[in-house]
Amino acid sequence: MKIAILGGTGSIGEGFALRWAGKHDILVCSRELDKAVSSADEYKNLLTYKGMQCCSMTGCVNENAIEGADIVVLSVPYQGVVTLLKNLYPYFKNQIVISLVVPMKKNNFFEYMPPEQGSAALEIQDILPKSVKVVSSYHNISARKLAQLDLELNYDVVVCGDDDDAKHTVMELTHEIKSLRPLDGGGLASSYMIESLTPFLINLAMRNGLSDLGVKFV
Amino acid sequence: MKIAILGGTGSIGEGFALRWAGKHDILVCSRELDKAVSSADEYKNLLTYKGMQCCSMTGCVNENAIEGADIVVLSVPYQGVVTLLKNLYPYFKNQIVISLVVPMKKNNFFEYMPPEQGSAALEIQDILPKSVKVVSSYHNISARKLAQLDLELNYDVVVCGDDDDAKHTVMELTHEIKSLRPLDGGGLASSYMIESLTPFLINLAMRNGLSDLGVKFV
Repeated sequence: MKIAILGGTGSIGEGFALRWAGKHDILVCSRELDKAVSSADEYKNLLTYKGMQCCSMTGCVNENAIEGADIVVLSVPYQGVVTLLKNLYPYFKNQIVISLVVPMKKNNFFEYMPPEQGSAALEIQDILPKSVKVVSSYHNISARKLAQLDLELNYDVVVCGDDDDAKHTVMELTHEIKSLRPLDGGGLASSYMIESLTPFLINLAMRNGLSDLGVKFV
Repeated sequence: MKIAILGGTGSIGEGFALRWAGKHDILVCSRELDKAVSSADEYKNLLTYKGMQCCSMTGCVNENAIEGADIVVLSVPYQGVVTLLKNLYPYFKNQIVISLVVPMKKNNFFEYMPPEQGSAALEIQDILPKSVKVVSSYHNISARKLAQLDLELNYDVVVCGDDDDAKHTVMELTHEIKSLRPLDGGGLASSYMIESLTPFLINLAMRNGLSDLGVKFV
């Protein structure tokens, strides 16, 4: 599949590019072409250095990548995502969009701040064409650990979405990353349950001297 | 310590009575004395059968138990807890009250339904005398597993509360149950983060053919 990673030059974007390389065509996306190309080259070099098979890994601007992609990964901060997607609207058709987006703010501690739709995922579905299938997932995977290719990721990944085929595709993609276990989180209306875990995990980590917390349901 | 377990004849109450027996004075509480005494006898017999040291385990009505207790465990459903605590108000002084209470309802799936205070724990603190120290914890421990004394409980227990000493006491009580790891969840204002996990875990279990889910932050 052709996977466009928006925010592909960021840390969590890097992890997905590296983990899905060799299995899919990866489009490392940015607003700036130079930055995208430079990150894609860096990831290819890293994979070569690790002796891993590298595939098609291309740096490109968001617009070009989205148009031909099967999957669009939204690994971008909440701030700015509405404007970003409104600008990119003409390039969306019937892709699967994976939202990692978590709206939160810090007062005394981090708190989940959902938009009026109830979650970032529902807001994103509102913005994009109806034919786009939004799936909400990967909110609680440590970027640092995801980018460490030697590391097994013994975590659970909750996947929410209203289109069963799209959800199934994302669960299969999850299985391709060693030791991640995808769990069906229900429809997109349930996305707030998993988005809201992110600030909770950050608070727990800070208060208990832990770091890069993920979650296992046991 | 003297631990009064409200809802002590229910399944989660049974687990705490059994796990803390031998270390503390356990008061198994109910509105009906006969029921309380009968459950306490049953727990004592079970501990004897298991060859475990049994201690002071007494069945009694809520009023009598609370008055002399150091700790009051609220292992009761959300429905009815406001009326229950208003009626028991005169018996509370400066106890530590551990709230396991989760307000939720089922539509298509289970959803967290916090009261206007923001969480059950904050509502309970509102009802009780200011001198009572409310600590919010143990929302996501499986009653069935807790009552199986041979089972190691390799779960995390998030503890929220505004009184540091009370929170420390509850974290120590958590350490006494084999393999549970207490984590500091911050003040009582953060309690909604852990209360809201319960409906999420129930939904995940139902959708994925799992059962008695707890949580590990890894």
